[in-house]
Parts: sequence; structure tokens; C-alpha cells
Amino acid sequence: MRKILIIGSGKSASYLLKYLLDKSITESLFITVADLNIENAQRLIGNHQNAKAMTLDVFDDHSRVEAIKSADIVVSMLPARFHIEVAKNCISLKKHMVTASYVSPEMQALDEDAKANGLILMNEIGVDPGIDHMSAMQVLDRIRDQGGTIILFESFTGGLVAPESDNNLWNYKFTWNPRNVVVAGQGSAAKFLQEGAYKYIPYNRLFRRTEFLDIDGFGHFEAYANRDSLKYQSVYGLDNIKTLYRGTMRRVGFSRAWNIFVILGMTDDSYTIDDSENMSYRDFVNAFLPYSPSDSVELKLRHALKIDQDDIVWDKLVELDIFNGKKRVELKKATPAQILQKILMDSWTLTKDDKDMIVMYHKFGYEKDGKQYQIDANMVVLGDDHTYTAMAKTVGLPVAIATLAILNGKIKTPGVQIPITKEVYQPILQELETFGIIFNEKEVPYLGYNPLNN
Amino acid sequence: MRKILIIGSGKSASYLLKYLLDKSITESLFITVADLNIENAQRLIGNHQNAKAMTLDVFDDHSRVEAIKSADIVVSMLPARFHIEVAKNCISLKKHMVTASYVSPEMQALDEDAKANGLILMNEIGVDPGIDHMSAMQVLDRIRDQGGTIILFESFTGGLVAPESDNNLWNYKFTWNPRNVVVAGQGSAAKFLQEGAYKYIPYNRLFRRTEFLDIDGFGHFEAYANRDSLKYQSVYGLDNIKTLYRGTMRRVGFSRAWNIFVILGMTDDSYTIDDSENMSYRDFVNAFLPYSPSDSVELKLRHALKIDQDDIVWDKLVELDIFNGKKRVELKKATPAQILQKILMDSWTLTKDDKDMIVMYHKFGYEKDGKQYQIDANMVVLGDDHTYTAMAKTVGLPVAIATLAILNGKIKTPGVQIPITKEVYQPILQELETFGIIFNEKEVPYLGYNPLNN
Repeated sequence: MRKILIIGSGKSASYLLKYLLDKSITESLFITVADLNIENAQRLIGNHQNAKAMTLDVFDDHSRVEAIKSADIVVSMLPARFHIEVAKNCISLKKHMVTASYVSPEMQALDEDAKANGLILMNEIGVDPGIDHMSAMQVLDRIRDQGGTIILFESFTGGLVAPESDNNLWNYKFTWNPRNVVVAGQGSAAKFLQEGAYKYIPYNRLFRRTEFLDIDGFGHFEAYANRDSLKYQSVYGLDNIKTLYRGTMRRVGFSRAWNIFVILGMTDDSYTIDDSENMSYRDFVNAFLPYSPSDSVELKLRHALKIDQDDIVWDKLVELDIFNGKKRVELKKATPAQILQKILMDSWTLTKDDKDMIVMYHKFGYEKDGKQYQIDANMVVLGDDHTYTAMAKTVGLPVAIATLAILNGKIKTPGVQIPITKEVYQPILQELETFGIIFNEKEVPYLGYNPLNN
Repeated sequence: MRKILIIGSGKSASYLLKYLLDKSITESLFITVADLNIENAQRLIGNHQNAKAMTLDVFDDHSRVEAIKSADIVVSMLPARFHIEVAKNCISLKKHMVTASYVSPEMQALDEDAKANGLILMNEIGVDPGIDHMSAMQVLDRIRDQGGTIILFESFTGGLVAPESDNNLWNYKFTWNPRNVVVAGQGSAAKFLQEGAYKYIPYNRLFRRTEFLDIDGFGHFEAYANRDSLKYQSVYGLDNIKTLYRGTMRRVGFSRAWNIFVILGMTDDSYTIDDSENMSYRDFVNAFLPYSPSDSVELKLRHALKIDQDDIVWDKLVELDIFNGKKRVELKKATPAQILQKILMDSWTLTKDDKDMIVMYHKFGYEKDGKQYQIDANMVVLGDDHTYTAMAKTVGLPVAIATLAILNGKIKTPGVQIPITKEVYQPILQELETFGIIFNEKEVPYLGYNPLNN
């Protein structure tokens, strides 16, 4: 039996476990899921003979080392900041490790030690980061292998609600960490490359400079720019590219409405609101509007942001019940972002019957023999139910497949890795297709950013 | 002879020195001006027998201590962050000290030591902070002495260009530190009290929620909110006030145009622009606008911000020459704010003949015998010339008057002080009047924030 230790059993554990349990007999696997709270793990394992759940406090050095010692490979599904202690133990105990998180500087610092010990520390192998790396590199490598020169790469991902559960005006529900959605895009300006020039979008304009995308059978989407579109420029081998843009997908119209919160200051997470606990939702809105003895909060907001009364964004605000003078915030010393998150969770929390959806869209522009070409590729994954979500599927399956591939010696290059080499992405993407995680590619005219070519 | 040591001889030293030199014979004063560069001090002193300039490196502990040791009182006109070492020496050498800067936590921590040694560390006795404290407290104390209850206090200050030198479309030139102007208002939301409710204005709205003010003979002004209007709420004894607002004054129309820079992201100081050195002014503007193969930078900007071609804000932008494709930024690794500052300094630097102007405006609302009243008070000070500016006058004179008053035992309460007690503000405001620094008060109907009462 090969022993797999999975530390952490949160939302994305369902498909990860299902994949490994399904293979556990033929592949002789025994899976131990370790967490502080093992209820979810026990529910997912059921009475499967090749798995067990164990209670583990990951901050307890002794227990953590003992758990890792008895495994052949370790999967950490902990929040990213907790990986590093596990990784250090993996090095000293000579175990491979897999995570779906971004490579931290501390993780990167283990690269030499990992190589010296012939160990693989595979990271960023979820959906974003993960499937985005793999699906992009597959096409980029193919174009370059065929003699093309990449001139444009744009990549967009979105965690959304499935069409059958899409029943609010925002066409949005929280399918992952709500906090990340509320504070998305804050800090320095979003930076990207457009036709050879660096471009910068400040936060207050981020949701007003979106790009539209269409996916056959799924309709229209929009995307706003990520903070740093250039992060993987060198890693992907795109140092001489003209246009490089990464973004987050939403349904069309989301961003224009969201921008109201941005402009009013409701997404600010840098200070606390006085007496937030006793505020009503209406008081919260009013804190960002001037006093008036006569005008309603509604009128003041419409006036301040010049919103027509028949504008659909207005209905979106009303739908969230933010003008309710009776609902209380009930959060002590809360930042505007924390209060907004609470208000949104009233409306945007998935119900038991709701299904989620992951969408991804890549554009590859390239030159070959003096001509310009473009390939668009997109992926849509729908969740099955509340447990087996599209998010869990697209995060958990690549992690699971990579874990087994490392155990089986199919992935063998040691070091701190992300899935951008053929050795890694080819077998994984191929197997993901059998689970319905498929990219649809089509050749389109190369437009670049030049609408006149259209 | 009483010996006064002035450390630092920057822009505001002119009136400070003039006042003390004029009194030096009758008051038996000898003034030593110490600075790293003594050219300016020598020019201001001329061949006056009761003063000398000396070279001093304030970071050299030995020289600093020696200089302080031989003085009876020390005035620090250094940048605020350098006061603390001087202050510590003053305590151990038992010297009084005067600064025009905000009380830092480190300065405040010396309060007990100062009191124990009977020493006065007088701070915030320039114009803002300084004259604002004194002129506000004089009226607030008078209203309260007469049985009134303060319900509204608003206070505004602006450093502007004198009407006779006001010859650009922005009605603005840099009369003090340009950098502070470019980054003004950044960080957490501006916070104030309005009719009993806390209000918050995010940076992107700060320059669109201005208040208008009129000063007889000087026309219209506008003001945007300071970051923290509540800083002196308790110090001024206004814990139960309904409306408390502090702001910065500009000529009407400045803020609407300035907001273009804010919205585009040009005032951001948190990241550097790639290859800023080789950019033209036009490239800089274009970095904040989408690529287009056909539209000019001008058209893209007008479109993005929905600016009509005959809107006066457009002329303001053109006047700054920001669309010039030949003028180079020439700053390495510069932030957007640094680049914008450079562009503005081309247009907004005072010439030799330009005169500056300081404006201040207070509103005091109060209740007495069940009725509501309001007093408005304002001050306008014009600069004499390039050396004897309004800024130097309004900063230097209160510092000088306080210094002599401390020497003469007229101000005697020891400790870390700001000028909010009658002992301090009464004699100083009275003497400032003889220099033309005069507040014009008038009773107006109490409007509060209620325009319907008008």
C-alpha cells in the first residue's frame, strides 16, 4: 500500500478524495485525511476500507511530523500560509508534496533542498492557479513548436453560479471565499501589457475597463484586470510579447454595478466604521453620502452617482436590501468591506440546491510566416451539487491526478515546481478530459486590440 | 542678552527672523541661526549686530548639544521628524523649545519630563496648525463663556496664489511643498461628523464632495475634506458636537479638474512606472488609457472620463502641456505621483514676482437660550514678495511672538503644549493683528447643513 496523507479537508476535498478512493484498490492506495475537525472528512470517506480520517493540529510539531513520517506523499490543502512548515518536514522526512497554492518566497527557498533530495514539491496545481497554467502552456508550446511567435496572450477565469441556479440580477453568488471577492483589485494599480505599452488601471477604474467574452452555449461574460498580469511573463517564456492580460470573469453588468460599491467606498478594508455594530444597512449606505434634512438615502445615492431611476444597476442595489433601515450590521468595529460582505452574504450565499460553474477563457495571438493568427480556447465546468462543486472538481482533480502521477513516477523532475512543463501538463490535461474538463479551441481572426480589423 | 537659537533656515525663516531682529535691541536678544547651509540665513541677517549664522549638522550630536547649551530658548524649524533629538537635548539642558509642527507621539512622551523641569515645549504654532487653533479657540471659548453650546465647527485653510499673480486656469500655484499637494487625501477615507452622523469619503470621491465658501473682496472658494476632521474634537472640547469638518481651500473648479488625475491614477505613489525615464508627458497620460490603433490620447481621455470638448477642465489639462509628446519625464523609476508633480511644477512654480496668499475660514454654530446662531470668521493674508511670503508670515510670526513671550515669562505653563489656551492665543492673536493677520467675523443665519433653512 502507498500511503497518501491529505492535510486539510475543506471545500475542495470532495473530488480530491473521490478520485483517490476510486483508484485506491487498483493502485493500492491508503489515504489518511488529517484535520482539526474530521467531520467533513468522515462524511466523504464513509466506510471505505482504504481511507481513514484523523484529528491533527497542524501547529503541533510532534503530531505533524509523526503524520508525515508515516506517509509516502503529502497533499496540503491548508490555507497557503500554513504550507511552509509541512514543506520543511517533507524535505527532512524525504516525502513529495502537492499543494494548489501560489509558491510563496519561503516555499521557493526550498527548491535547492528539494532537488538535492530528489523530491517534488508541486504547487499551483488547482484551477487558478493550476488548470490555467497547464491549458495555456499546452497551446503556447504547440504554437512555438510549430514555429509561431506569440504576440498576444490573454487569460480569464471566473468562479460563477451555474445557469440553472443563476436567479439574481447580479448573475453572481459566492462560490468560494467571499472576502476575496469584496477586496478584489485593491492596492496598487492593475498592470498589463497592451500592444507593447505598459498600462495601469487604478482601483477606481478597474470595474469600468472590462473586456467582453462570449462562450458558445453560455452567453456573454466580462472580465476585469488582475492586479499583476505580468507575473508569469518570463515563466511562460513571453518576454517579448506585445499584449499580456489576465482577468477575472463575471457575467456582463456585474462590474458596472459593483463599481458603485467601489466609488462609494464600501469595499475599503483599511479602517473601521464607528459604531458599526448598531448600524442598519441603510445607515451604512448613508455613511458614504452627505447629510440632507429632506432627501432620502436613495435619492442622495442616485444623485451622487448620477444613476437614472430606471437603470438596471438600481434594481441590483435594491435586490441586496441595502436600503433596509431595520436589518442591523451587528459586527463590532467592522471595516466597510466586512460590512459589505455581510450584506452580500444575505443574498449571494449558495443554497443546498445551487450549483456553481467555473469558466476559463484564453486568447493566443501569434505570428507565423508573416501572418497573424489567433486561437481562442475556453472551458466550462458545472458543479454536480453542493458537495461536488465545479470549484472542488477543478481544484481537487488536478491535485489528485498529480499526486498519483508523482507516486507512480510519471512526474519525476524534482524541485519546487508549478505545472508548466509537458511532463506535467500533458498527462494531467488528458486525464482531466475524461472528467469533462475540456478546452474548446477555435481559430479566430487575429484582432489584437485593434477593433478596426474586425 | 537673551540668546535664541533657531535651527533650520528654510522658507518660513524670513518673517521669524525679521520679527526677532526688529525687537533685538529693545528686548536685548541675540539670535543664532544654525543650518547645514547658511546662505539663506546670511542673506536674511545681513550685517545685523544682534544675529549670526552658524553651520550646524543637526545629526552631529556633539555640535547640536553645544549649540543648544549656549542658548536660552530653541526654535526648531527643521522638518518635523528631526525635532525629537533637539527636544530631548532641550529637556536635559533645561531650555524651552518652539516648533510649528504637529506633536509627534515621541514629542508627547516628553510631556512629564518637560513639566518636571518647568520647561515649555510649544508646538503647532505656525499657521495650520497654529493660527487655526488659536483663532478657533478664541471664538469657541467666547461662545462657551457666554453660555452657548457649540453644535457646529468647520474650519478651512488654503495656501494659494495672490489675486494679482493668479494667472492660470487652475487658479493655483505651489506655495509650499508640491509633493503634499499631489498626494493630498490618499489613504483611508476622509472622516467627519455631519449632523450627528459619522461620514466617510473615499479618495476617489474626495474632490467631488467639496463645500463652497465666499470671502468678501476675494470671491469664491471651495474646500475638500481633510483626512481626519475629528483629530482635535476632544482637545477643543467638542465631544458632543453634531457637525465637525476640516478642509483644504482651493479656488472653485480646482477640485473637479484635479479629480481627473485622481481617477486616471496619476496621483498614485505606491508603485513605479516601467521605463518612466524615457516616457514623454503624452506617454504618461497614455499609460492610463486603453490602447487604440486609431484614437488619439486626447480622444481616449475625453471618452474615458466623458469630458465634453468645450468643458473648461479640458483647457486646464491642455494648459499643463500633458499631451506633449516631446517633453520627457526624465525621472528614473518614478511613481505616477512623482511624474505628475514634475509636470505640474513646469506650470505651477512661483516666479520671482509672484505673491502667495493664505486664506482661512471658520464656521461656528451654537445654541443659546433655545435659539441657533452662527458666526463665520475668515482671514486673508497676502505675501509681500518672493521672500516675505504669506506662508512665511503666518508660520514665522506666531513662532517668533511665542518665542519672545516665553522668554519674557508671558507664556509660562510648562509641558508639551499646543496653542489652545487663553494664556497663549490671546496675546499672540492680538499682536498678529498689528501685522495685518486679522479675522473678520460676522454673524450669519445658522444653516448647519440644512439648505432648506436658507
